[in-house]
Amino acid sequence: MTRILPRLDIPACLQQLRQLLQEKDLDGFWVPSADEHLNEYLPENRKRRQWITGFTGSAGDALIGRDKAWLWVDPRYHEQAEQEVDLSLFTLIKGGLPDQPSLMEIIEALGSGFRLGVDPFTVSVATYRQLKTHTQAGGVLLIPTSENLVDRARQGSTPDSKPSEGVSESFTQPIYAVPTSLSGATVTEKLGQVRKQMQQKRVGLLPLTKLDQVAWLFNLRGSDIPYNPVFRAYGLVSTQKAALFTDVERLSPEAQSSLQEAGVEILSYASYVEHLPLWARNDAPVGLDAKHTTQGTQNLLQNVACRDLDHPVEALKAIKNPVELEQMRRANRRASRAKIRTLAWIDRQIQQGIPISEADVAATMKRHYQEEEGWVGLSFNTIAGAGPNSSIIHYGTPDPNMLLRVGELFLLDSGAQYEGGTTDDTRTVWIGQGAANPLCQQRYTEVLKAHIQCARQIFPPDTYGASLDGITRSTLWHAGLDYGHGTGHGVGAFLNVHEGPNGIHRRASTALKVGMINSIEPGYYLPGWGGIRIENLYEVVAIGEPKGWMGFRSLTWIPFDRRLIDWGRLDEAQTAWIDHYHQQVYELHHATLDEQDAAWLKQACGLGEP
Amino acid sequence: MTRILPRLDIPACLQQLRQLLQEKDLDGFWVPSADEHLNEYLPENRKRRQWITGFTGSAGDALIGRDKAWLWVDPRYHEQAEQEVDLSLFTLIKGGLPDQPSLMEIIEALGSGFRLGVDPFTVSVATYRQLKTHTQAGGVLLIPTSENLVDRARQGSTPDSKPSEGVSESFTQPIYAVPTSLSGATVTEKLGQVRKQMQQKRVGLLPLTKLDQVAWLFNLRGSDIPYNPVFRAYGLVSTQKAALFTDVERLSPEAQSSLQEAGVEILSYASYVEHLPLWARNDAPVGLDAKHTTQGTQNLLQNVACRDLDHPVEALKAIKNPVELEQMRRANRRASRAKIRTLAWIDRQIQQGIPISEADVAATMKRHYQEEEGWVGLSFNTIAGAGPNSSIIHYGTPDPNMLLRVGELFLLDSGAQYEGGTTDDTRTVWIGQGAANPLCQQRYTEVLKAHIQCARQIFPPDTYGASLDGITRSTLWHAGLDYGHGTGHGVGAFLNVHEGPNGIHRRASTALKVGMINSIEPGYYLPGWGGIRIENLYEVVAIGEPKGWMGFRSLTWIPFDRRLIDWGRLDEAQTAWIDHYHQQVYELHHATLDEQDAAWLKQACGLGEP
Repeated sequence: MTRILPRLDIPACLQQLRQLLQEKDLDGFWVPSADEHLNEYLPENRKRRQWITGFTGSAGDALIGRDKAWLWVDPRYHEQAEQEVDLSLFTLIKGGLPDQPSLMEIIEALGSGFRLGVDPFTVSVATYRQLKTHTQAGGVLLIPTSENLVDRARQGSTPDSKPSEGVSESFTQPIYAVPTSLSGATVTEKLGQVRKQMQQKRVGLLPLTKLDQVAWLFNLRGSDIPYNPVFRAYGLVSTQKAALFTDVERLSPEAQSSLQEAGVEILSYASYVEHLPLWARNDAPVGLDAKHTTQGTQNLLQNVACRDLDHPVEALKAIKNPVELEQMRRANRRASRAKIRTLAWIDRQIQQGIPISEADVAATMKRHYQEEEGWVGLSFNTIAGAGPNSSIIHYGTPDPNMLLRVGELFLLDSGAQYEGGTTDDTRTVWIGQGAANPLCQQRYTEVLKAHIQCARQIFPPDTYGASLDGITRSTLWHAGLDYGHGTGHGVGAFLNVHEGPNGIHRRASTALKVGMINSIEPGYYLPGWGGIRIENLYEVVAIGEPKGWMGFRSLTWIPFDRRLIDWGRLDEAQTAWIDHYHQQVYELHHATLDEQDAAWLKQACGLGEP
Repeated sequence: MTRILPRLDIPACLQQLRQLLQEKDLDGFWVPSADEHLNEYLPENRKRRQWITGFTGSAGDALIGRDKAWLWVDPRYHEQAEQEVDLSLFTLIKGGLPDQPSLMEIIEALGSGFRLGVDPFTVSVATYRQLKTHTQAGGVLLIPTSENLVDRARQGSTPDSKPSEGVSESFTQPIYAVPTSLSGATVTEKLGQVRKQMQQKRVGLLPLTKLDQVAWLFNLRGSDIPYNPVFRAYGLVSTQKAALFTDVERLSPEAQSSLQEAGVEILSYASYVEHLPLWARNDAPVGLDAKHTTQGTQNLLQNVACRDLDHPVEALKAIKNPVELEQMRRANRRASRAKIRTLAWIDRQIQQGIPISEADVAATMKRHYQEEEGWVGLSFNTIAGAGPNSSIIHYGTPDPNMLLRVGELFLLDSGAQYEGGTTDDTRTVWIGQGAANPLCQQRYTEVLKAHIQCARQIFPPDTYGASLDGITRSTLWHAGLDYGHGTGHGVGAFLNVHEGPNGIHRRASTALKVGMINSIEPGYYLPGWGGIRIENLYEVVAIGEPKGWMGFRSLTWIPFDRRLIDWGRLDEAQTAWIDHYHQQVYELHHATLDEQDAAWLKQACGLGEP
């Protein structure tokens, strides 16, 4: 992912936006990371915050005033933002540091009468409520705009694009159907599940704003967004009807007929804004999830009763059906094999003294993924960090000049989309033969223990991710170590690699349920020294006894690096867990590998000569 | 705590309230557990929900319609509510069970046009918002009443009380000052801390609704409420002024002069409703904590800008200053000694074959507390459960007919208020000599391990209680065991035994900080078999390295029952933790005990003959 414009043009971009502020009689404009569908990964033409600030990270909001501008980023991006952003143009707010104001505090202090413009389609209802509270408190006027001023500024700045569309209308990729053999449920069945929930929550109409919700419900996929196999669309479900709002001409014939079968109307993307208020009925409120729809949608329903709810599709989508689980297992077996082949390849290059770079590994990883059946694409930008680069948690730019060096750590966090399944895993390895140095061993082993603590935990019904986050960190904390990110995230089935509502972090208050899929990925990072992360995906499974209790079963089958394990730090149960895991890894893969990879795997699993 | 009226009168109470419903043209009335100050423990004349339902538990809300009535209770009270409530008069809703509707769902389904009365002074702003959402969704009309209908009904039912006051005006206990030698900070200093927070949060006025907030800020105590050393009052703090609203004539001369010194106005309790709107200024909003003030207060501020915030006094009060910490340590040493003497006394009675009942133990416990210096009262109703009664988590009625029997468990959860400090601890013991039966040993040891796992955990800044809740349960879960309550709660310094905002439970999202005090009290309960709980209070302390990290230091020093420990289940670190703890217990107490108690302690701490 490269920037659209070189950093030099940022002053020009700012100037263009500021001219529009003057035209529109505004004193500032709110430029959040999110787009109309609250995407994490954005299509190029929606990277508004990136365009106006130069900052390429996946999260971070900007506020542009007539003379001043602010950019807020979270702790993952403090370093990156400093490198990418011109600090003479932007005040950088490093979120999470004790002395830093929040953006909301800055908004509040803009001054009474300040006119702050916001495109209501780029903020969630929840964020808009926050903006409202804080602007009111500070006497600031919050002014919804009917068009996005960054889009306007951007159109003006790229003379080759047509002024009236260009930025907003450039999706051309096909939209295709996912057969029931991969999705495990027909659209009709899913609509039935959603309507049952709507009945329980007593709502008559449910809009779908998030693209993965739309893709899941209608058993469709596309490629409008990098890494996420989704397409630009809205959805509407009422107690009687359902509609998909997208570019009709992009729907494959199979997609069209499967929608027709389920009685789903196919309407143009643009007509969503007209249809939504018409579909709303007076006798049953519209269900809105404040975190998963935009204020733009809310504004279309001004004279209609609405009800806050957790979006039923989020909860339904999170619990994978047996077919989805089987697809996820298959996809992750393939991705695991691709990673095993890559790790074996790295060791061979190093042994033979062939220099390889971060970019070489990323390319090899991708090639191995591609060689597996059903390949669709990467599920996120491969993170391949050598030496000190391994400590940059979201290191997204594998460097062709950064070589893997003997005596250093190397971190490889990658994933793929296969037809039916999404993968994500991380291995940290030692470059070189023989045991790693003791400090690396100590820290790797503590991270591995943390991983195992979570992976082998059994837990009763109604256990929150927050509890498991603590359990994961417990032994690591005893060693005085910690990591500055959550322990794990939900993963979609042939959908987004980051998916809610389940997760494992200190604020995670969703109960884990059988059929959910979650990563476990503790780590340790020391800038300048390096970083360690060990990540598998797991499905939540019933354990039989005690009744209703659950545990984790791995979807990822890749050996841990024995050169980095200090066996003396592990207790019996942890050692047994590793040995059993390695045995399963070997049994699963060895017959499917060529001779040299199979030999590498045997040794990597500790099953070589004694 | 006995009921005010025998259960037989409940139909009469209901009838009286229902007559009022008719008079006031209402279809129902909301009777929550809380009173005007959102107290957990209520003065007798505010036990409205208990009066109308017969249910004596500390939590549970009722809804009284013209023909139907509902009572909702949480899992701690399912059993007790069934015993206490006439199920022909009330639909009992057992919260936490999957098939049970929430009270809010019942309200929503009352029917369009249903007129639901509510006394806005008995609901928090947060609860009122919930009520509003759900009544609106169901077309129910939410009607704030200007008087509490239960009070009216109750006055009518007790002819000996004067109709116009009686229920509402009966506080006569003195209100006294806490010297700085116990509080560690003057009222002026505390007002300074509060105003600094008010400035940061940009509010100009701060009402205090919770009695412990008022008592803390003004360094005063009283005894209007059972167990909580507080008094009926409101407080107001503006950037320039401060006022205490209470019964002026009950303030001791020292209390009056200390308030005058700090420039605090002393005004009548009743005048709060007049003063609050007058103190509010237009240029700075009033800070309201939706969880810690009532809708009644909110309603007094209808034309005034208000801002939601976490109440500054909650956060300040939670972090104990050095003097408060020292007082807490002293109080808990005294309470620990009283419990040691009680446990020794139990063993002697059993050895000598003297029959003792739950009530005998509760009485002895209280006597021993009283014999310590600075005794003020109990901090909650002593829980003394023998055999199967030990499984009732909030068992509050020690039975003079229930004897402690050899070969059974006995659970003693009690605490005291001493001048300057509050205590709370639980020990579960085996009745009889020699080792307990293996099942009791196994379960006791697993609970003890859970306790130790939490107590010896070190953790970085910004650790939430939710993480520690998981850490506590981890080993217990591995044994297939769990408990249906939180792991721990904050405790006040010579204030309420349950205090926020810190806590250790799966939803606890307050970062633990040095100077906070929290209980750790895992358990295991099997109805009919018995229960185990092991509770100490701990202060959060800095551990030096890593910098900023924290751990726990015990305030409670009472031996664990060695008859119930299966040492084979403990790892080295856990065994060392117990041995070290027991050594400290012995060193702290042995010289202060008489010969026979000292000998008992020596053996209980494992320091007797080999």
